[in-house]
Amino acid sequence: VPFKQVDDLSHDSLVRRAASLVTNSSSTFLSQTTLALIDAITEYSKAVHTLISLQKRYLASLGKLTPAEEDSIWQVIIGQRAEVNDRQEACRRFESTWFTAVKLCETAAEAAYVSGAEHASVTVRTNIQLAQSQVEEAQKISRDAEKKLAETKVMEVERMSENAAALESNTEEEMPEAYLRED
Amino acid sequence: VPFKQVDDLSHDSLVRRAASLVTNSSSTFLSQTTLALIDAITEYSKAVHTLISLQKRYLASLGKLTPAEEDSIWQVIIGQRAEVNDRQEACRRFESTWFTAVKLCETAAEAAYVSGAEHASVTVRTNIQLAQSQVEEAQKISRDAEKKLAETKVMEVERMSENAAALESNTEEEMPEAYLRED
Repeated sequence: VPFKQVDDLSHDSLVRRAASLVTNSSSTFLSQTTLALIDAITEYSKAVHTLISLQKRYLASLGKLTPAEEDSIWQVIIGQRAEVNDRQEACRRFESTWFTAVKLCETAAEAAYVSGAEHASVTVRTNIQLAQSQVEEAQKISRDAEKKLAETKVMEVERMSENAAALESNTEEEMPEAYLRED
Repeated sequence: VPFKQVDDLSHDSLVRRAASLVTNSSSTFLSQTTLALIDAITEYSKAVHTLISLQKRYLASLGKLTPAEEDSIWQVIIGQRAEVNDRQEACRRFESTWFTAVKLCETAAEAAYVSGAEHASVTVRTNIQLAQSQVEEAQKISRDAEKKLAETKVMEVERMSENAAALESNTEEEMPEAYLRED
């Protein structure tokens, strides 16, 4: 009987150790995906801010540019929009990996708990919470950037219609002259 | 732009490596829990077979034993029944850990796949299948043992009622003699 007891204990302890290893590697995987996601969100936010400043510069110079200058600024803006889309796509990709990592850590925490590795279970749960708060922080920054971009869009529409109105009145004023010249 | 691309690639490769680590440790956890479960099932099956042979020996010797001998055999049988229950309890415990390990490996396989570590994903899925077939094999053996135990129970009931009938007819046969002596 004592031999069997030792045998039993050793199975338990091997299972417990293996469960601890899983929580360690799951935590590593979570922190890697968290870093990747936060970097992706940061790069995306930066790209959005660059787009905002480009659009603001364009709006500020509306009516003061030659069509060639306007066109070259538009090329830059279009390029930056593509950059924003690429960055957003990267965010989505890393976000899906990150969600899987969170799910994995939750399963690892459960496995550790069931195996009697309570400490490892608590550690991995703490890591999940930490990762979640870090990602939320980064997402707040990117949401702020998106809000500012939306505000710029509103500003753009206003300035464009102002400009169009100005152009129209210019055209109307110029019209008679041209008409006269033609005549 | 080339710098950013390298940065991106390195995140991807770090995530992929971390995912591979998780599949490795999950596979280790699965194999430890599989070994523990199979050992538990084997010990349980052995305990059931010991109980069966004890009960068969008891039935074979029915009517040939003194009450003291019968009592001591019963003590052994009761002890063995407790052993069987303990072993079954151990099976249930390791089975629940094992189910968690399978679930964990499935999540790890998914995480590896999402992270682009397809090879690691396939490996862990193969390990799941292997573990499942090993456990099924062991469970088949324990189910056979349980079936035999149930058959012994039927045999026991039959022998007990035969014995009771024999005892009764003995008592009936002896009755007149005792009656005559009394008279």
